[in-house]
Formats: sequence, C-alpha cells, structure tokens
Amino acid sequence: MLATAISQYQQRVDEQIKSIIDSQATTDLKLQSAMKHGALIGGKRIRPFLVYAIGDMLNVAPEKLDACAAAIECVHAYSLIHDDLPAMDDDALRRGQPTVHIAYDEATAILAGDALQALAFESICEPIDGITPSQNLAMVRALAKASGYSGMCGGQAMDLNATNKQIDLATLTQLHRLKTGALIRCAVELPMIAAAVSIEEQNLLMDFADAIGLAFQVQDDVLDIIASTEELGKPQGSDCDSNKSTYPKLLGLEGAQATAQGLIEDALSALTKLPYNSQLIAEFARFIIERRV
Amino acid sequence: MLATAISQYQQRVDEQIKSIIDSQATTDLKLQSAMKHGALIGGKRIRPFLVYAIGDMLNVAPEKLDACAAAIECVHAYSLIHDDLPAMDDDALRRGQPTVHIAYDEATAILAGDALQALAFESICEPIDGITPSQNLAMVRALAKASGYSGMCGGQAMDLNATNKQIDLATLTQLHRLKTGALIRCAVELPMIAAAVSIEEQNLLMDFADAIGLAFQVQDDVLDIIASTEELGKPQGSDCDSNKSTYPKLLGLEGAQATAQGLIEDALSALTKLPYNSQLIAEFARFIIERRV
Repeated sequence: MLATAISQYQQRVDEQIKSIIDSQATTDLKLQSAMKHGALIGGKRIRPFLVYAIGDMLNVAPEKLDACAAAIECVHAYSLIHDDLPAMDDDALRRGQPTVHIAYDEATAILAGDALQALAFESICEPIDGITPSQNLAMVRALAKASGYSGMCGGQAMDLNATNKQIDLATLTQLHRLKTGALIRCAVELPMIAAAVSIEEQNLLMDFADAIGLAFQVQDDVLDIIASTEELGKPQGSDCDSNKSTYPKLLGLEGAQATAQGLIEDALSALTKLPYNSQLIAEFARFIIERRV
Repeated sequence: MLATAISQYQQRVDEQIKSIIDSQATTDLKLQSAMKHGALIGGKRIRPFLVYAIGDMLNVAPEKLDACAAAIECVHAYSLIHDDLPAMDDDALRRGQPTVHIAYDEATAILAGDALQALAFESICEPIDGITPSQNLAMVRALAKASGYSGMCGGQAMDLNATNKQIDLATLTQLHRLKTGALIRCAVELPMIAAAVSIEEQNLLMDFADAIGLAFQVQDDVLDIIASTEELGKPQGSDCDSNKSTYPKLLGLEGAQATAQGLIEDALSALTKLPYNSQLIAEFARFIIERRV
C-alpha cells in the first residue's frame, strides 16, 4: 500500500512541478533546464508524500494540495542544489546523476536554486478553490518560516559550522530539527492548515511531525554507516570522511538506531490519539527507520 | 525635498530589516551576522523609497508598507550577495565594504542570500492592519513573480549568458527589464495593491514603473562609463572589462543618454495623467538620470 501511494504522489508532484516551471514566461532556457534538472532529478518525494497523505487522512482533496506539495519540494530541491555547490558539500553526484553545477555551471546552479525558491512561493500563493485567502497566507507563512534562518537555512549553517568540531547531542538535535525537521514539519502543517483541525489535533500532528523529522535524519546518519555506496548513490561514509558530527558518532550505531526507534514509537503514539484512519501514515513512519536508502 | 525623503525612508526600512532579522529565533549567529552585513550594507534603498513614496502619493500609510519595503529590499540584498560570489561577478567590494563572501565565506554567503529570500516572504505575508488577506496574498504573488525565473533571476541568467557575446538591443532591453526592472516595477505594484486603485490608474502606474526601471539600468550603464571609481565604489568600467553588452556599447554614450532621457519623459507623462500629487515621485524620476552614483 505504501509503495503504491508513494509512487502515485511522486508522479503527481513531478507533473505539478514540471507544469509550473513550463507555465512560466520564457526568459533564459538554460536556467529553465537547470531548474528542471534540479527539481526533477528523482527521489522519494517524502515531503510531497506527507502533504498529500496527511491531507488524505484529514479529508483534504489532493487538488487543494498540489501547489503546497510542489512548493515544498521546490524548496527542498533548491536547498540540495545549493548544498551540492563546491563552496558547500562539493558533491558531483546526486541520485546517481550529475549535480546541477556539474551538468551546467556554478553560476547557473546558484540562480536555479534562487529561482526555485521564488517559484515555491509563487506556487503556494496562487488562489485555490476551497482554501480561504487567510488559510493560503498561513501556508505561505509556514513555508517561509520553515525555509529560512529559523528553519532550514539556519540548520544548514549550524551543520557547516559543526564540521571538524565536537558538538554535543543537544546541539546536533537542534541542528537536525532545523536542517531536515523544519521542512518535514511544514509538510504536515500545510495540509493541517487546509483542514482547519482543532488545537488539540494540531498539537498531536506537530508532535508526530517533529518525531518523524528527527527520526528521518537519525536514520540518514545510520544509513551512511551501514548502506553500500550503490544503494546511497554517493560514496559510503562520506559524512564520516568530512568529519561531521552524527548520531552514530555520539551514541554509537546501536544507540543511534535505538533513538530512531524511540522517535518512531513517539510518532505512532501521537497518531493513535488522532480520530482518523492513520494506517498509511503509520506505515510511512515505520518505513522511515526500515528503509535502506 | 527628495534627499530628505530618501534619507528618511532609508532609515525607516533599515530599522525594519534590522528588527525582523533580530526577531527571528536564534540559530546560527554567524549566518545572522552575514545576513545583516548583506542587508544593511548601505545604499540608497531605491525600491523601499518607491514603496513608501508611491504609497504616500496614493494615501497609504507607511505603517502598512513597512513589511513590503523590507521584503523587497531583502530580495534585492540577497541578489547582490549571490551576484558578488566568485562563480558570478566575483566582486570583493560593494559600496566600499567587503562583500559577504569576503567578510565571511562563500558557503555563508550562499546561505545568507537564501535565508534573506525566505525572510522577504516571511515579512510580506505577516497580517497587516487595514490590508485584507487577499491584498496581502496579491503582494506575495507580485514579489514572487518579480523575483523568480520570469523576473529577476531570469534576467540575471540572461545577463550571465550575454557576457562575451554580441546581443541586440531588443535582447538587452528584455534582460534589463527583468534583471533590474522587475523588482522596481514590483516596488510600485506593492503600494498600488494596498491602495486598490482603478485599472486605468494601475496601467499608468505600471507604465511609470516600467519606464523608470529601464531608465535606471540604462543610466547605470552610462555611469559605468563616465563616473569615477571613487564615486561608484567599484572599479570604473568594470562592465566594459568583463565584455558585457551595455546600452553605451550598442547606442554610443550619447545614444544611451538620450534613451534614458526619453524613458524619464515617458515616466513623467504617465505621472501627469494621474490625479495625485506626484511632485516627489517626479523629482525622483528626474534624479534617476541626474544621479552620479
């Protein structure tokens, strides 16, 4: 069930992203091509999946969430394009394909990232049938907060400054809650805004989102140790080589795995308290720590 | 009168930008400092000036426009930070001060730009007294369109690809209408959305904005030829050295000056058709081609 749903939503959001890039008034074709390369390079589309699947759980039609799903993936895609730049992680490959600055050039990669961020906000602020302007504005606000200094960008800066340094577990946790967690939290928040649920349910949904967001990153650290190069599409242990702080380094491999397991149990516990059919979402939560890539 | 107004609004928007950066939940202090360096490095604040001054002309209180003025300047500031990077224009100085990647490092400059773009959208989507959610959303939309692929970013990509190439006047004009013009147009559009004027007045205001936006860039090209290094704060003729297409190259210095003059006459003609006291705005339009920096 989960695999089918992931693949369905993946296709749906890819079509959406392609359509909003194609619908832009043409300016520079190389830039447009680079934006597509960066935004449509593949991947599981975890964030759009969450937008649609949480929406489905809360009875929000996918048509109301296409713009949100595309927007959040555009933000994620731009962050990967910039992350891969020589001045940042200096990665030549992503998902087995050349990164944007390799396939094009550095200047184009910087601009493609910038333009994808703008496109995210352009997408999410288009009027949507059945969504009030106030809800729509709240979505813009959630995405902006999750993406910026107090969210993803702040986490990336902390991550950069943590390289070749000893940081403690509290700092590493804050770093990951921002770098990866903020956008995953936002992926749950956007359909929640569309559904207009009670404060109590909001809190449970945010607890769920915080737990899976952190678990996702802990599992990424774990996979970097145990998965093979082929499965990851990047050199094995590359985070170790670059001397970054990770959960396995601070807690040992088993300690990190136990942490991820505990977080998923917290996430499932929040789900069971919600009066919705959360079967698919629960399956997804378990998948986060069972996945090999 | 103009100098006083420019200085007043400059101070007002700087305080606003400083306050929204300071009000963010603290994550990485180096990133925060780099964002301030990039966003508060000085300059005339042409775009915020237009937001406030057009607002004043249309009877929109400045309190309603603080978020817009800060947002548009954050977009402009992020574009300068990224423009100055080694992979783009490779500039070490801006307004006589070290650029962000020189004062900090390249990775921090990339992230500071990214975070300032997110901050722009966070700022502009905050609820404002006397502005409806629909108007507020229209503002977000205008800023996103002006910043992205069909606006500023597209223009920058065209500019990069025009280096060391012969391009014709039509292409150069489109490039500048996007690279500089889109955001200047947006600076007129934002207070216009807040004022909710008639379609006829909207068209006149947009004609005005398009004319001064292009005139501003033509005059920049002219100044690059005639102004001294000291006045510009960057090496004289740097656009010539890098073999970029400019108006003086295509039309000669006098031809470029005549073009700028003609555009300002168009702008003033649009203004006189509007039923508002446009004295300050007219003075500003003339200033665009009279300025030496």
